[in-house]
Amino acid sequence: MEFSEWYSEVLRSAEVMDVRYPVKGMYVWMPYGFEIRRRVVELLRKKLRETGHEEVLFPTLIPEGNLSKEAEHIAGFEDEVYWVTHGGTKELNERLALRPTSETAIYPMFALWIRSHADLPLKIFQVVNTFRYETKHTRPLIRMREITTFKEAHTAHATEEEAEEQVREAFEIYSWLFDTLGIPYIASVRPEWDKFPGAEYTVAFDTLMPNGRALQIGTVHMLGQNFSKTFEVTFETEEGETEYVYMTCYGVSDRVVAAVIGIHGDESGLVLPPVVAPIQVAVVPIPKKGARREVKEAAGDVADLLKEHGFRVELDDRDISPGRKFHYWELKGVPVRAEVGPREVEAGTVVLFRRDEFEREEVDLDDLPRAVEALLEDVAENLRERARERFESMLHRAETLDDLEAAVRDGGVVETGWCGSESCGRELEERLDVDALGTPYPDDEPEFERCPVCGRRADHTLRLARTY
Amino acid sequence: MEFSEWYSEVLRSAEVMDVRYPVKGMYVWMPYGFEIRRRVVELLRKKLRETGHEEVLFPTLIPEGNLSKEAEHIAGFEDEVYWVTHGGTKELNERLALRPTSETAIYPMFALWIRSHADLPLKIFQVVNTFRYETKHTRPLIRMREITTFKEAHTAHATEEEAEEQVREAFEIYSWLFDTLGIPYIASVRPEWDKFPGAEYTVAFDTLMPNGRALQIGTVHMLGQNFSKTFEVTFETEEGETEYVYMTCYGVSDRVVAAVIGIHGDESGLVLPPVVAPIQVAVVPIPKKGARREVKEAAGDVADLLKEHGFRVELDDRDISPGRKFHYWELKGVPVRAEVGPREVEAGTVVLFRRDEFEREEVDLDDLPRAVEALLEDVAENLRERARERFESMLHRAETLDDLEAAVRDGGVVETGWCGSESCGRELEERLDVDALGTPYPDDEPEFERCPVCGRRADHTLRLARTY
Repeated sequence: MEFSEWYSEVLRSAEVMDVRYPVKGMYVWMPYGFEIRRRVVELLRKKLRETGHEEVLFPTLIPEGNLSKEAEHIAGFEDEVYWVTHGGTKELNERLALRPTSETAIYPMFALWIRSHADLPLKIFQVVNTFRYETKHTRPLIRMREITTFKEAHTAHATEEEAEEQVREAFEIYSWLFDTLGIPYIASVRPEWDKFPGAEYTVAFDTLMPNGRALQIGTVHMLGQNFSKTFEVTFETEEGETEYVYMTCYGVSDRVVAAVIGIHGDESGLVLPPVVAPIQVAVVPIPKKGARREVKEAAGDVADLLKEHGFRVELDDRDISPGRKFHYWELKGVPVRAEVGPREVEAGTVVLFRRDEFEREEVDLDDLPRAVEALLEDVAENLRERARERFESMLHRAETLDDLEAAVRDGGVVETGWCGSESCGRELEERLDVDALGTPYPDDEPEFERCPVCGRRADHTLRLARTY
Repeated sequence: MEFSEWYSEVLRSAEVMDVRYPVKGMYVWMPYGFEIRRRVVELLRKKLRETGHEEVLFPTLIPEGNLSKEAEHIAGFEDEVYWVTHGGTKELNERLALRPTSETAIYPMFALWIRSHADLPLKIFQVVNTFRYETKHTRPLIRMREITTFKEAHTAHATEEEAEEQVREAFEIYSWLFDTLGIPYIASVRPEWDKFPGAEYTVAFDTLMPNGRALQIGTVHMLGQNFSKTFEVTFETEEGETEYVYMTCYGVSDRVVAAVIGIHGDESGLVLPPVVAPIQVAVVPIPKKGARREVKEAAGDVADLLKEHGFRVELDDRDISPGRKFHYWELKGVPVRAEVGPREVEAGTVVLFRRDEFEREEVDLDDLPRAVEALLEDVAENLRERARERFESMLHRAETLDDLEAAVRDGGVVETGWCGSESCGRELEERLDVDALGTPYPDDEPEFERCPVCGRRADHTLRLARTY
């Protein structure tokens, strides 16, 4: 099955999202999908708090005057902003934008909050919905007109060095998040012509979906003093001077969930990393005539035991066949299934089935919690490893235009030499019908001899891919 | 200080919300306020899950055609709906409403989700932002144009009895929430002319702010088959017949946080119930010359010990005077302060200060965790009790128009007899410049002889109050 068909089908059948909502590009999170989303958000929220970020919540609507204040920023967003023009039957004095992102909502308040160097650094984040009137093909979690989960962090610093340091911290935080979820990635400094509107530079994380398309799953922006000058965000230095702050912002979205689903899933449905699986162990009794009660009780005991040990467990005592239950929990991507039949009751054992590799092992009841813990860790590690291997198999290198064309056909990311000029970069994009992801971050060591377009020395490595 | 002035001041100085956002009726949750909000939401979320509600997330935008489908519903909301008319520079084919509430977003999906009696009951909820173009005076958390925290639950049932049962469950859930937060309340069946647009009847919870004004803090709506007929939400019964489902919905909002703040606070600032206090114990070292290091270390040990026992603790080691720290933590409403000075270091004790009653007690270090736990429980109970007492002192009864006029002047709620006719009810509202909250729920026993307007037999008790 083609990937995009598989993706739609698994969202539907595993009850992640319902796409039948009657507005294009806007979808409904179903309970099971919502739980996955919630766990991803909580993971990140915890990490952000640990690293000194405070959570806030800003209004959804931004006055047109504020949104338009930073020239590059509004130029980058004006085609995709939803505008509120009426309240009830009255036309509003000033149009209000549904936030496409919140810089222009937040920074005017930073100007009020920040007085002196003692107020710095200021590190905040919020988890909100944002809106983009996308004209490209929309897709659940990947390209939506309402991004339902936009975690955006915004920071202000006294010096450029500290802001640079913050870019690195953000890089570490997102790397940690993707590693934890077993999502392989590369980080690149986006080319000038594709950076965040208003930023000095943008570092972006890309992963690869199984069809070889790159999916941007996180961005970190060095804003320098661009926005602080626009919104008059100043502070008094220790020496009593007034200076503009240096700022950064960084965000991830629903696409993290899309990556978890797309990268780990298989023909049987979702395969969820245990850390975000709403249910980690599904306990399925396999009754036989003459031993129904014993099996049912034993399965209940197994579920209770695992719950006591802190696992997220569901006992499936529905009145349907074990086969249908197996199929159901495989579709839902539950990492481990515990099967209890008459043989296991007698032997004092449980059969553990791992979703990722479809393998079974029998363990003693006494040893069950430890075995489940080890198995969940093993599943997490295996998902990470096999995703990494597939990812690496899709990273290519090419030196000439001919080789590039061949490499691009395979999908994935192709690295090549680059002189650094926008014209050569754009020519590559057009000729190969790809996007330039940018140059390797944090280190862009020269690895190629020549720029394949102009033949000049390649001071940079440029990454190219078909993208979402 | 007048209550509404106090309220604005405490939101500002305790850093709950910043009201300087440049759109009327829309405000910014500051980190401390956000934490209180988050804990309130988590309390409720946990309870809803325990009672079989599943969390979902629907889009913010509702097509005009859907919103307008239920005649009473749109009539009730059309004056206060924000309309999105443009995407980028293009005018949309159909206007999109920013949800004022989500019935008309959710029920068309219910029509797709519900097939047979086996799909019932369906109980879902979401925590979202909603929008109302309020023309009345706006106030943070009380009347906002963006309601930032709207927890709405929606249920579908096979029979009217089950839907009625669900109304009672919702009543129990919200009663539990308010009790847990120490918010006193009365529940009333709203008069016909003030029920939720499209509902059969509405049960509403009201509390009283210290100025005697009633604040609606929760509503439960019996929708009957009104919406299921509009949106064709049907199911196949066990007998194979097709029937419309019976529905209920119920919601609470930011106003719960407003009530926590308004009802428990005092002249020194916030007073937070321990269950939602972001910090439960502030540890303040009180250094003296010659014992600075010992005191600092001891305070650190106290903070560590309490953290180990699961309390939310902040060690205040800032370089400012203990007096300023006391003032600061009192303003923030932290329920308990632990003071550690040289005398306590020597005696192996800690002084515990309770925010609600400004009382101190000295406890042995050995006994500290237990003492703090007991004290927090005591604070919670005392807040509940004193709020309940004040609330009850503001509940009045009156039988004649003259007595009603006098009682209304005192503020609070006045109960009187009522014949049940809309004309008498509305006449009372107008003559007394109050709102009719409705009749007591769950039991409206006749407690008065006559309706003070028409003199007919009073079959009902009617509650009247000045409201927010």
